[in-house]
Amino acid sequence: MQSFLSILSAIERGEVTPRQAVAKCFDATAAKDAEIGAFRTMADRETTLAAAEQASGPLAGIAVGVKDIFDTHDMPTEFGSAIHAGNRPAADAAIVAMLRAKGAVVAGKTVTTEFAFLQPADTRNPRNPAHTPGGSSSGSAAAVAAGMVPIAIGTQTGGSVIRPAAYCGVAGYKPSFRLLPMVGAKTFSWSLDTAGFFAAGVADVAAFVARLTGRALAVEPVDPSSLRIGLYRTSLWEEAAPDMQAAVELATDRAGRAGATIVEVDEPSALSAARAAHLELQNFEAAMALAFEYDNHRDRLSDVLRQNLEQGRQTTPEAYDEKRRIARRARRETGALFETVDVLLTPAATGAAPEGLSSTGSPVFNKLWTLTGNPCINVPGITDASGMPLGVQVLARFGRDRMALSVAWWLQALLGDARIGAQKQ
Amino acid sequence: MQSFLSILSAIERGEVTPRQAVAKCFDATAAKDAEIGAFRTMADRETTLAAAEQASGPLAGIAVGVKDIFDTHDMPTEFGSAIHAGNRPAADAAIVAMLRAKGAVVAGKTVTTEFAFLQPADTRNPRNPAHTPGGSSSGSAAAVAAGMVPIAIGTQTGGSVIRPAAYCGVAGYKPSFRLLPMVGAKTFSWSLDTAGFFAAGVADVAAFVARLTGRALAVEPVDPSSLRIGLYRTSLWEEAAPDMQAAVELATDRAGRAGATIVEVDEPSALSAARAAHLELQNFEAAMALAFEYDNHRDRLSDVLRQNLEQGRQTTPEAYDEKRRIARRARRETGALFETVDVLLTPAATGAAPEGLSSTGSPVFNKLWTLTGNPCINVPGITDASGMPLGVQVLARFGRDRMALSVAWWLQALLGDARIGAQKQ
Repeated sequence: MQSFLSILSAIERGEVTPRQAVAKCFDATAAKDAEIGAFRTMADRETTLAAAEQASGPLAGIAVGVKDIFDTHDMPTEFGSAIHAGNRPAADAAIVAMLRAKGAVVAGKTVTTEFAFLQPADTRNPRNPAHTPGGSSSGSAAAVAAGMVPIAIGTQTGGSVIRPAAYCGVAGYKPSFRLLPMVGAKTFSWSLDTAGFFAAGVADVAAFVARLTGRALAVEPVDPSSLRIGLYRTSLWEEAAPDMQAAVELATDRAGRAGATIVEVDEPSALSAARAAHLELQNFEAAMALAFEYDNHRDRLSDVLRQNLEQGRQTTPEAYDEKRRIARRARRETGALFETVDVLLTPAATGAAPEGLSSTGSPVFNKLWTLTGNPCINVPGITDASGMPLGVQVLARFGRDRMALSVAWWLQALLGDARIGAQKQ
Repeated sequence: MQSFLSILSAIERGEVTPRQAVAKCFDATAAKDAEIGAFRTMADRETTLAAAEQASGPLAGIAVGVKDIFDTHDMPTEFGSAIHAGNRPAADAAIVAMLRAKGAVVAGKTVTTEFAFLQPADTRNPRNPAHTPGGSSSGSAAAVAAGMVPIAIGTQTGGSVIRPAAYCGVAGYKPSFRLLPMVGAKTFSWSLDTAGFFAAGVADVAAFVARLTGRALAVEPVDPSSLRIGLYRTSLWEEAAPDMQAAVELATDRAGRAGATIVEVDEPSALSAARAAHLELQNFEAAMALAFEYDNHRDRLSDVLRQNLEQGRQTTPEAYDEKRRIARRARRETGALFETVDVLLTPAATGAAPEGLSSTGSPVFNKLWTLTGNPCINVPGITDASGMPLGVQVLARFGRDRMALSVAWWLQALLGDARIGAQKQ
């Protein structure tokens, strides 16, 4: 993989120019993407290299893969749907404009599942092409995992950043809700849709978002003796594969040995209720957000999307309002959880990436935190006996993104390249 | 003006067909809009009449003016800016799709100020063409006031629904934040932008939004003896013209005589702080939302917009976060205000519509409530000595839209066509 921080250092030391750093991304993509299918559209190589050469700013020399759910004025933006084939937006999404203003270039648009929902696309997992990369930010996770680009941008409505990051073995960061603008991203559910980021390691993703936003997000040293980690198993624990349970236990075990205080945290009933409310809330909003597509191009929607939109259309405003109240209560209760711990640790997914491309996996360990808006990080490093990544999720109080990133970075170092289970025959 | 409820009744009684009802809107617009300038683009007459003829649903026969800040797949959507001349969106905005799904037709796109900010457009006030109609939903308010359409849709970020409704003498309704979807509307400030509605009377606008959303919003009878009205003067009272002060006092006086309890309500300091925070919060978000336009087409922005975007670019993330905290506190404090009263009454604007088209007037009496997200209604009916409308604003607890609408409807009936001040010579 390409490390964002290593590229910045190499540029700073004069070992590589911004143009060369970006050219390396085009070369890597040309070499690998026929097999992986991470990009839907690549930017024009020469135009982009010329832009990199002229670039100034804290992200000069950085090529970014942008999920094809964000508008780009100079590249088609198709949202993973044939309905919008060839669509050319009038303006860049706010986050794309931010990238460019800071000196980064858009290497290309990465593959998204249809409207960032569940219908799988063709992207393969770089760790094993027979497995799904996860979704919906499939191409963004794969592009980073395959070493095509140092940074990619995705979105999460259920688990679309953390899960593909976990499956592909890269760092994933879903910031606190509305830390980054969603202007110019195709809406699925406005209460849930959240921009997120992929990079080789946690320190990379933190440094990138710090430079992108001007916020104090770069990781800082953690004092284990004052760190309180909550192990958050909940009733979902049995849905995690044994390898995943072992990965989370390995993380808490090593953190405990390093001096952190580990406590078991039970799930308040308000949070279980909120997890259960996620789908109906999401679908009600999606039915409005995609009403044009449903009303005019129904036959070009996947079955799974059409069925969920129809479910959303059946939901009454009163039922939706009740789900919104449940979500508000959950946000308050989540705040209370962090009175006794600094971060929570949970599985990032139910296990390693499933074999086959017919499903992008389950967001069951992620969707509650998308609803509550807390910052979530996937910590990469652990693999199973076959070498497939097992992600551990760190989350912190709303707005305490730097805490989540710093603890995740510390954990990543503690875990190294740990392997779970016996080697397969 | 055309009353929404009267049109529905006439269609129900078979006195007019949906096609005829829509044709009347095209005729009225053809007769009047050369002088007023409410529409930026009209829909194709024959296509639209044919659609109205085929329409079924609770809004069949209703022609709607849609502010040109909402995407329409079949009409240009230019956001009041030459930068986007001829822009053709890939999909309808969610609210446009809702309209159509319920049987309404889009008569055309109404004039918006540049990106729904302060730079005036050319629309004139139908009550006196030498005066501004207010902004930013200038064309929507004027189209209803001039009798071109029974319903128009706008947006409010500061005071862009309530103020033009007040200036043009029509009912205006800014719902609770996020009651209606903003998907497919050009974003200025995602924390503030709110869809709103214009109609001849309060009962019209309530019935329309009830049918559009399937929510219980139609006005219901008010029992004055159990109604507690808060007169909310605040330190801004001196910014209201004497005629406007008299209009608000007339409303409270009549409400009191009708049996309601009137109490003076002081402004909590958290709300004054929130009003003061509105501009910086708005500009920080606008600088992100319009970064593409600023970075690529700066010379085609008005001075007032460019200056505000530059102010937004100077705001630090920390200062923005502080403003967001102030807004959150204000939302809590606003809830507490409604422990003792059912609705608050304030001026809807500083006075009647100013003469000239060089300013759209001040949002000072509106912007706090856009930030807090409370439902606001402009009650039309009162005029000054020269016949220009003076609007009174009713607002209620977040989510109590029906209460706000019902009290506003009751007040509208109480006020009739009251006139303030001496007849001008």
